[in-house]
Amino acid sequence: MNQLLLKKQLQEFLIEDIGTGDLSADLFNDETEISASIVSKESGLFAGYEVLNLGYGLIDPSIQTSIYVKDGDYIEQGMVLAEIRGSRTSILKGERVLLNLLQRLSGIASVTAKAVSLAKGRTRICDTRKTTPGLRMLEKYAVRCGGGYNHRFGLYDTVMLKDNHLAGFSSIQDAIETARKKLGHTVKIEVETETENQVIEAVSAGADIIMFDNCTPEEISQRLRYVPERIVTEASGGIELDDIDSYARTGVQYISLGFLTHSNKALDISLNVKGAVKA
Amino acid sequence: MNQLLLKKQLQEFLIEDIGTGDLSADLFNDETEISASIVSKESGLFAGYEVLNLGYGLIDPSIQTSIYVKDGDYIEQGMVLAEIRGSRTSILKGERVLLNLLQRLSGIASVTAKAVSLAKGRTRICDTRKTTPGLRMLEKYAVRCGGGYNHRFGLYDTVMLKDNHLAGFSSIQDAIETARKKLGHTVKIEVETETENQVIEAVSAGADIIMFDNCTPEEISQRLRYVPERIVTEASGGIELDDIDSYARTGVQYISLGFLTHSNKALDISLNVKGAVKA
Amino acid sequence: MNQLLLKKQLQEFLIEDIGTGDLSADLFNDETEISASIVSKESGLFAGYEVLNLGYGLIDPSIQTSIYVKDGDYIEQGMVLAEIRGSRTSILKGERVLLNLLQRLSGIASVTAKAVSLAKGRTRICDTRKTTPGLRMLEKYAVRCGGGYNHRFGLYDTVMLKDNHLAGFSSIQDAIETARKKLGHTVKIEVETETENQVIEAVSAGADIIMFDNCTPEEISQRLRYVPERIVTEASGGIELDDIDSYARTGVQYISLGFLTHSNKALDISLNVKGAVKA
Amino acid sequence: MNQLLLKKQLQEFLIEDIGTGDLSADLFNDETEISASIVSKESGLFAGYEVLNLGYGLIDPSIQTSIYVKDGDYIEQGMVLAEIRGSRTSILKGERVLLNLLQRLSGIASVTAKAVSLAKGRTRICDTRKTTPGLRMLEKYAVRCGGGYNHRFGLYDTVMLKDNHLAGFSSIQDAIETARKKLGHTVKIEVETETENQVIEAVSAGADIIMFDNCTPEEISQRLRYVPERIVTEASGGIELDDIDSYARTGVQYISLGFLTHSNKALDISLNVKGAVKA
Amino acid sequence: MNQLLLKKQLQEFLIEDIGTGDLSADLFNDETEISASIVSKESGLFAGYEVLNLGYGLIDPSIQTSIYVKDGDYIEQGMVLAEIRGSRTSILKGERVLLNLLQRLSGIASVTAKAVSLAKGRTRICDTRKTTPGLRMLEKYAVRCGGGYNHRFGLYDTVMLKDNHLAGFSSIQDAIETARKKLGHTVKIEVETETENQVIEAVSAGADIIMFDNCTPEEISQRLRYVPERIVTEASGGIELDDIDSYARTGVQYISLGFLTHSNKALDISLNVKGAVKA
Amino acid sequence: MNQLLLKKQLQEFLIEDIGTGDLSADLFNDETEISASIVSKESGLFAGYEVLNLGYGLIDPSIQTSIYVKDGDYIEQGMVLAEIRGSRTSILKGERVLLNLLQRLSGIASVTAKAVSLAKGRTRICDTRKTTPGLRMLEKYAVRCGGGYNHRFGLYDTVMLKDNHLAGFSSIQDAIETARKKLGHTVKIEVETETENQVIEAVSAGADIIMFDNCTPEEISQRLRYVPERIVTEASGGIELDDIDSYARTGVQYISLGFLTHSNKALDISLNVKGAVKA
Repeated sequence: MNQLLLKKQLQEFLIEDIGTGDLSADLFNDETEISASIVSKESGLFAGYEVLNLGYGLIDPSIQTSIYVKDGDYIEQGMVLAEIRGSRTSILKGERVLLNLLQRLSGIASVTAKAVSLAKGRTRICDTRKTTPGLRMLEKYAVRCGGGYNHRFGLYDTVMLKDNHLAGFSSIQDAIETARKKLGHTVKIEVETETENQVIEAVSAGADIIMFDNCTPEEISQRLRYVPERIVTEASGGIELDDIDSYARTGVQYISLGFLTHSNKALDISLNVKGAVKA
Repeated sequence: MNQLLLKKQLQEFLIEDIGTGDLSADLFNDETEISASIVSKESGLFAGYEVLNLGYGLIDPSIQTSIYVKDGDYIEQGMVLAEIRGSRTSILKGERVLLNLLQRLSGIASVTAKAVSLAKGRTRICDTRKTTPGLRMLEKYAVRCGGGYNHRFGLYDTVMLKDNHLAGFSSIQDAIETARKKLGHTVKIEVETETENQVIEAVSAGADIIMFDNCTPEEISQRLRYVPERIVTEASGGIELDDIDSYARTGVQYISLGFLTHSNKALDISLNVKGAVKA
Repeated sequence: MNQLLLKKQLQEFLIEDIGTGDLSADLFNDETEISASIVSKESGLFAGYEVLNLGYGLIDPSIQTSIYVKDGDYIEQGMVLAEIRGSRTSILKGERVLLNLLQRLSGIASVTAKAVSLAKGRTRICDTRKTTPGLRMLEKYAVRCGGGYNHRFGLYDTVMLKDNHLAGFSSIQDAIETARKKLGHTVKIEVETETENQVIEAVSAGADIIMFDNCTPEEISQRLRYVPERIVTEASGGIELDDIDSYARTGVQYISLGFLTHSNKALDISLNVKGAVKA
Repeated sequence: MNQLLLKKQLQEFLIEDIGTGDLSADLFNDETEISASIVSKESGLFAGYEVLNLGYGLIDPSIQTSIYVKDGDYIEQGMVLAEIRGSRTSILKGERVLLNLLQRLSGIASVTAKAVSLAKGRTRICDTRKTTPGLRMLEKYAVRCGGGYNHRFGLYDTVMLKDNHLAGFSSIQDAIETARKKLGHTVKIEVETETENQVIEAVSAGADIIMFDNCTPEEISQRLRYVPERIVTEASGGIELDDIDSYARTGVQYISLGFLTHSNKALDISLNVKGAVKA
Repeated sequence: MNQLLLKKQLQEFLIEDIGTGDLSADLFNDETEISASIVSKESGLFAGYEVLNLGYGLIDPSIQTSIYVKDGDYIEQGMVLAEIRGSRTSILKGERVLLNLLQRLSGIASVTAKAVSLAKGRTRICDTRKTTPGLRMLEKYAVRCGGGYNHRFGLYDTVMLKDNHLAGFSSIQDAIETARKKLGHTVKIEVETETENQVIEAVSAGADIIMFDNCTPEEISQRLRYVPERIVTEASGGIELDDIDSYARTGVQYISLGFLTHSNKALDISLNVKGAVKA
Repeated sequence: MNQLLLKKQLQEFLIEDIGTGDLSADLFNDETEISASIVSKESGLFAGYEVLNLGYGLIDPSIQTSIYVKDGDYIEQGMVLAEIRGSRTSILKGERVLLNLLQRLSGIASVTAKAVSLAKGRTRICDTRKTTPGLRMLEKYAVRCGGGYNHRFGLYDTVMLKDNHLAGFSSIQDAIETARKKLGHTVKIEVETETENQVIEAVSAGADIIMFDNCTPEEISQRLRYVPERIVTEASGGIELDDIDSYARTGVQYISLGFLTHSNKALDISLNVKGAVKA
């Protein structure tokens, strides 16, 4: 996590919501200090420690935040996750944006954890680039909190040769050779395969990662025989929670799941004001 | 929709994904021109015309985009939504980010349309501030595409007096009077009520909108009797798709649904390259 | 007021003036600590507490700022408004930008207060969107400091149907119905009227606010008879300080004044260095 | 003028006003094309050609803008300054922000021209750093349009030794020598003087510019005798329009006027829609 | 190369130089159109096609740019690299910033090409993270133009375990296992080694890349025997042009050179105005 | 130096390198506190105090930085320049970017000092606008640290009439008169001359600074006779370290050197971790 980038993003998110001012919270005349709890209203995995830790400080440096959970912790319904103490106006101003983030990140961590547990340690669960625009760093962080792994972060850090790329070369071998000729030693090359022949060709051309795209578990089991141990394997393409077990049994090393981030269900987390703090 | 703001956001989203360059698409030596289709792989409502219209132009002004659907159109599985023609490198570079947005916005429009149809015209469906940080303008636009209505856009455009705000005043009347004394004539005041007494008090204090928070349909039916016609009513708080019919039958005017935006399921849309264009 | 946004604006304003460095203040070799006063050289209303409070901290966190007035306070010529203590270099660097803002905001508050006093409590004074580009939040804040009210903050938070909008519809009724059909319950609809018939039509179509544009006090008095109590009324269009009394006597509820912000006269405020602080 | 910077500023200003969308203009269903005129409702000097030229293009590249005046032109009440043709929605969206700028800049140009004419060619009129934060480039441009001259643009391009700076040195000579020792040959050094002795000292120390701060015309006449021709002279400090003639008669070369920019009166300019364009 | 990001950077660079306006070029009254050539005054490799291609368009879209060379082309002293035609004012405004970039990038490409030729195809030359802050994308692009390869782009795309990282683990094996446990399959792990034992340990722990840091060619030759073919090897640490041959002879696969970017010598390129274009 | 601008630049530079997170440093589980030294591995002049002072604070406010040198100090090989104490993760994250800046700035200061010493006090050494895009403020600061002087900071603060500008006027006199007519009293006018006649013309037209462009020392000696004392003189154009002595002997007042910033050799500075701090 890059805290400097996170701070910059939190500032933009808070400004998006507060705009020219909080018409409701700015009605208070006094500077009453209150105490409030962040409470989970649903069980799942928590993610978003830094969001909470940095977020309120940006709004008002005098707010004190005590967080009782760590990223990746299992939280039960009704648990107090954190306590916030400070100016009522400031606490109410930041509530919605910070909860929106906590709920989304914890939702991603929770569904990732579910996927991980369904894989029973046989295979690793990873994400895709199907993240919410603007939130890639945070959403991929949440996947890690849930026990998942990150696939590439963007177009800039790994080569992925999909069918539309391969169509531009004479063969998989041509494509991989071109990549090796142009790119340095820190970049891995992944090839998306749809047929047995493509797997064989990708192996012989020296791919670092072979992805089985839209294949059945049976097809994958079959084709894994062509893949030597040094090459990483990945199953991808419309795999749902119910499919994980059968894919995991094939022995494929990674299963990438777009829905972890593109179809997130928020984990219900709310802020309860406990009342004014007596001086 | 503010196109200037949208362009700025699209630039940031594209830079988030492309980073220092697209390692894969930049492998192509030639400048092959291809033709590609945007195809729906699932039925639902389309949203995101401007995203597609402006997005590819930002990456490469020479790309031609023909879009065959309008925002809010019902699209069937397999339909060709748009055709893109231009440099293969540029089309592949923008694919993921633009699809991520189209899928998210169309997903929101689609679930909104489902909620709207369940309300059978008895009540209006509206959104909340539980949107994805950074995407409020776009997600609220998608709700409109689905036939829903927008609740306030931020803390800056409507007063919402929740329990945590009311706790800072001697009474609902005190809170509303304070707001009227401080705020101009373009701002509406909404009061969140949890009890019958609060409804009565909010009506007598002159609230513009009364929200029934976490109330059963029965409670709402009961309490609507105290609300004169000039005051708008809204049901809120954990209402799911299955609950819409019973809430709609109460006669409440708006039902606000957080899940429209906080727990979005992406609509499956993809880009199919049709091949190189012959010169 | 959104402090996060204010900080961002102050940073940009300070960078605009300091640029690549303060050639004069950077001549000092030593780090002499000085004490300085912010003094009003003219009577009026003060506005800009947060500007002063946050501004010097951005330049140099070690500067101590003691502010003796609150926003909206009447300040007499010669009054010490604040005392600043810290590095001479830092205090001189920020002087001009912060005074530019204080003078402008206090000027707006002062002229607003004059308008408010001329209205003798009969009507409320409000601003317009004729603010300085880039300073809308601050200038509208200053209007409130002077006892005025804010009209809409931008095109995004209230519908205003002017003649140029109405020309696009078959009638005022058509325009309002279209707006009601498309927009949610938190948005008010204001209609600009120039004739008696338009007033009657706007009332019957259910406008929330009726603006009398470029009407004489007599015309307004006449036309107010058609407007029921639940509809807010506003006089607008080239009204000057001298006209306020006669408009206020009509019983119209709001008078909006473009000159509050578009033709501001700065209130004279300056910084006096009192000398080096002895260690 | 830096057009790249101007574009960036215009984008920010338009986004400030349009926010998440123009609720009123976005009500139109059709894409009616209209024609509109920019008309002066007051006589004065025009400034803002580039604002108009670039501004509408940022909102909608298909808008055609024909501008009939040049910056610095005298415009009479009722003159058509420009014609705009394009989508009604787009034209209405940009109207207020662009007019706000045109009015402010033309107001500055007009008052500058008045000051210039009062100086009757005996002395040059210049501005100060008392500009609106965020608008320095534009406001100083407007001063030039009115026939005035620009004083320094910021703390970064000229040394100005005011009393608070001089207090940090043993003498004016010490201050100037320090500056000459530290700064290169492209930077001029101006010294603010309040007494005859300071003038004499500044001359002998080799100042490039001598400012007479808060001096009467008589004092200036007296002290100019000590200033050789190669040193530029400037009168400053609370000089109003009525004082210009007597200051100009002293033979001082520049008179700097803070009110040109800090207390601007907008020139009244408006946009008149002429109606739909027939296809 | 990410053109969107490049445009954003070019805008900032141009604004840094032009500031509030080009005092010299803005002196011209007319809009004379001129023709100018970009000429190399030194032999070397060219890099910066997109800088030139996009740069002038940002300043003035009417400028026509014809570029006669491609990135990576060898250019001889006196060659005309490009011709620019358009407004004199605009061409002079952009000259310095664009040349600064072309000179720097071509300088990097040229020295890289020299290093590549010294390696005689025995080993690849690559860069480091010792790039100029703000210019990483462009400088790493220039290295590729010169025939070199890119090492990691930042801390975010490859694991590099240096001595300071290894000090935080019980052993190299512990460090690599920790990385494998936490990180996905697209990330390579490089280990910096200083001793023979570290090489042996890194090999057995499964490093993807082994870097020989500050080792002599003899040490590297010796230690390469422990490294199986599937692991990439890299020599690093203060290697100069004169050392390349002896390092290349060791059989190490990559030599990384900090000086390619941290101690760049600009290639001399200038703009010659050929005169006004006759209408 | 503008600290606010520097902070903004440092944030961008750090984000460029850290991106979505530091894959290596984020492997540490614990929050070990370490102590590290910044050490010079080469002799030269130090520049970059504020970079170090502000930089680590941006990454992690709990890091303590003790800097033992001032900008412009001569540092010997092996000297400890600063000590850093704090979280190992944070210290390693910022290392490369901060060293990249320190090395570049100290390299510039060092070569400037060399040039200054070669001039033996006979003439001043100054920089040009051939700085790295994005780093002008910092690089020009480094030139001052080395005892050099700054030429203009951008196109906005001094008029420089080069051959390409002069070509647009009927004569040097015409150009200077135009500039004097348009520009205020704080701006100096420099004229680039290539012939004796141009020098004579520039003197008689009242240039403030005369630059001898691409002239031999002999030519300059010859032509200096035409230049009265009040006009500053500058030699420019491809002057290298070896040429300084002969140019300095001519009596010219400034020698401007592009290579100070366009062909910088980094000064070798590194960070040595001393180990974990015992609690």
